[in-house]
Amino acid sequence: MKEGLEDVVAASTRLSHVDGEAGRLTIAGYAVEDLAPRARFEEVAYLLLHGRLPEQVERDRFAEDLAERRAISKTAIDVLRGAAAAKTPPMDALRMAAPILSLGRAENAREDAMTAIASFPTIVGTYWRMCRGEEPVSVRTDLAHASHYLHQVFGTEPSAERSRALETYLNTVCDHGLNASTFAARVIVSTRSDLISAITGAVGALKGPLHGGAPGPALDMVFDIGSAARAEGVIRAKLERGERLMGFGHRVYRVRDPRADVLAQAAERFYAGDGDRSLYELARSVETTALRLLRERKPDRRLDTNVEFYTALLLHGLGLPSELFTPTFAVGRVLGWSAHCLEQLHDGRLIRPQSAYIGPTDLHYDHRPAGESRSPQSA
Amino acid sequence: MKEGLEDVVAASTRLSHVDGEAGRLTIAGYAVEDLAPRARFEEVAYLLLHGRLPEQVERDRFAEDLAERRAISKTAIDVLRGAAAAKTPPMDALRMAAPILSLGRAENAREDAMTAIASFPTIVGTYWRMCRGEEPVSVRTDLAHASHYLHQVFGTEPSAERSRALETYLNTVCDHGLNASTFAARVIVSTRSDLISAITGAVGALKGPLHGGAPGPALDMVFDIGSAARAEGVIRAKLERGERLMGFGHRVYRVRDPRADVLAQAAERFYAGDGDRSLYELARSVETTALRLLRERKPDRRLDTNVEFYTALLLHGLGLPSELFTPTFAVGRVLGWSAHCLEQLHDGRLIRPQSAYIGPTDLHYDHRPAGESRSPQSA
Repeated sequence: MKEGLEDVVAASTRLSHVDGEAGRLTIAGYAVEDLAPRARFEEVAYLLLHGRLPEQVERDRFAEDLAERRAISKTAIDVLRGAAAAKTPPMDALRMAAPILSLGRAENAREDAMTAIASFPTIVGTYWRMCRGEEPVSVRTDLAHASHYLHQVFGTEPSAERSRALETYLNTVCDHGLNASTFAARVIVSTRSDLISAITGAVGALKGPLHGGAPGPALDMVFDIGSAARAEGVIRAKLERGERLMGFGHRVYRVRDPRADVLAQAAERFYAGDGDRSLYELARSVETTALRLLRERKPDRRLDTNVEFYTALLLHGLGLPSELFTPTFAVGRVLGWSAHCLEQLHDGRLIRPQSAYIGPTDLHYDHRPAGESRSPQSA
Repeated sequence: MKEGLEDVVAASTRLSHVDGEAGRLTIAGYAVEDLAPRARFEEVAYLLLHGRLPEQVERDRFAEDLAERRAISKTAIDVLRGAAAAKTPPMDALRMAAPILSLGRAENAREDAMTAIASFPTIVGTYWRMCRGEEPVSVRTDLAHASHYLHQVFGTEPSAERSRALETYLNTVCDHGLNASTFAARVIVSTRSDLISAITGAVGALKGPLHGGAPGPALDMVFDIGSAARAEGVIRAKLERGERLMGFGHRVYRVRDPRADVLAQAAERFYAGDGDRSLYELARSVETTALRLLRERKPDRRLDTNVEFYTALLLHGLGLPSELFTPTFAVGRVLGWSAHCLEQLHDGRLIRPQSAYIGPTDLHYDHRPAGESRSPQSA
C-alpha cells in the first residue's frame, strides 16, 4: 500500500513540474521566478489553458472574455448573504457559492473554466464585504484580473504596486503539480463530470489545514515574536515544546521552495514602496533565526521556508486579513484546477484505485423478528 | 505511471471489500446479499459509522438522531428554488445544496455525517417536487429513512413493499471500495478538511457518466426493445455498430456484480407484488439475450450484468424517474462517503501523489514594454 500515494505517479501533465530535490518549479515551460513576477495573470491563465503564451491580440480578447464573466448570479449572492448571516468562514462560503457557477449555463469545459476563474474574485470580495457589513461593489470590466480582486475586496482601485504584488502572488500559486486539491479536481472530472463540480471539490480540499489552510499562523508567529531580539528565545521555546513551526517544511520540497523566493522578493519590493518596512525586516529576521535553529536541531533534515511564510507577509502587506489568505490562494489556484481538468478530460481515464480490506469477514446478519435485538455473529 | 491508479492500493478500509475476481462484495463483514435485503438502512448506517450492528436501543436512538436532522435550511431551499427556475439537472442541484449543510453548525465529523445522510433525501425530494411545480412536503420524523425519501419525492406514505425495495437498494449501493466519488471524498478530507466539503466533492464525482451517471440508459434499452422477441435483433445490431451495452461490464468485477443479483431479487419480489410484471419479464429476457450475445462475440472476455441494469428496473418500478436514479444512488452512497471520511480522518494521511511532467522546459518569458507582442522563446 502506498500511504497517501506518496511517490506514486497518478497523472502526466504539461502544466507544471515540481522538482522537490532541486527546488525548482516549472509552469508550462517557464521557471516560476521568471514568469510569476513579470507576466500578467491573464497571460499565465492563457498559458495554462492554451499551452502557450498569447500574442497580444489573443491576450486582450482573453482578458475581455474573463472580465465579462465576473458577475455572479442572484442565487449565489443570496447564498453568500445567508452564509454571512450565519458567520460562515470564507472558505465554506466559497464552497457554497462555487457550485452555483453553473446556474443557467450549458456545461462547457472551457467556458466553465473561464467563468470560475473570473468569478472567484467576485465571490470572495463580495462575501468579505458582506461579513464586514459593507455593501458589495459592482463588478468592473475595465480592471485587470488582479486589480479587480482587490477592488472587489476593498471597494477602491488599487495602486499599480499593489496589483503587481497580488498578481505575482496569484501567478506563483496558480499551479503546483498534483497537490491534494488539484488531484481531487482530477479525480472528480475523471468520471466525465463537469469542471464546476471538480472546482467545488477542490475548494473543499484546499480548505484543509494540511493543504491551503495554514498561511495565517506563519504570520501569527512573526507578530507574536514582535521584535528581532525575541526571535531566538520564542522559536527555541516552541521547538523545545515540540511545536511545528508554521511556514517551514513541505512534503515535496527537500530544499527551499522556489515560490518562497519569488514571494520574498515581491514582498521586499512591495514593502519598500507601500508597506510597513519594519514588519518585513522582522519577518526576514524571524526566518533566518528559525532556519538556523531548525538546522541546529535537525542537521540531517532539510526544513526550509515554504510558500506560506511569504504568502502571509505579502498578503498582509496588501491589507488582506488572514481570513482571506486561503480564499486568495483559491483565487490563484482555480486556474490550475481548471487547466488540470481540461487536461484530464482530454487524455485522462477514470481514476479508481483499489483499497485493502482490513475489516472482518463472514459475519452473518442475524435476522430476528422486529422488537428483538439484532447483533452480528461471527460464522 | 499508473493510469487511473488501476491496481494501486490507495487506502486500507474496514468498510467494504470488493472482490472482483470472485464477484463478492463484503460490507463491514457481511456479504451484501445477506445484509442488504434484510437490514434496515439505519442498521447499515450504524454498522458503517460505528463498526458493528447496533443493539436495538442503539438503533432506535440512532434512527431518532437521523430523523431529527432531516430539515434543510431556508438558504438551501432558496438555492433549490433558484436551481429549479433555471432547470438545473438534479445532480447539479444536489451539488449546490449539499455544501450548505454546514450552515450555522460547528464542524463536527460525526454530526456532519449524520446531517448529510439525513438531509440528502430531503434535498432530492424537495428539488424534484419544485421541478414538477409541486410544493415540497414537510419533513416527517416518524418515518424510517427509506420511507422518508419516498415521502419527500411523492408526498405520500409509501407501502411497506416499496420502502423495503428502496431500502434494499440503498443498502446495496451504500459503499463499494474506493470508487471515484469515495476516493474524491477521502482525498478532500485527507487535508483535514470537513465532511461536508468531502461529500460535496463526491456528489460532483458521482455525477459523471463514467461513475454514477449511467443507470438511465440501461433501462432505455429495455424500453427500446419493447418485447422479448425483438431483443436479439436490437442487441445484435447495437453490437455490430460497436455500441456499448449500458448495464453490462464493470471495471472491477470480472464476473457477475453481486449487487446485480441482490437487486434482481428485490426487483422480482417487488414486481411480483406491486409493479408491472411484464416489464420485469422483459428485462430478464433482455439480460439473458444480451449476455448470450456478448459471450458469443467476446468469448474470452467476461462482460456481465452490472448494478446499473437492475438499479434502473427497481427504481423505475418504484415510480422514480430516470432523472432521479443518480440522485437516489447518492442518497445511498452518502453513507459510504461519510464512513470513509471518518476512517480517513482517524488514520489516514494527506493524499498527495506525484505527476510526471511531459511539457516543455527552459522557456523564457520575453519581457517587452506594454503594447508590444510577447511570445515564448525556447532557450
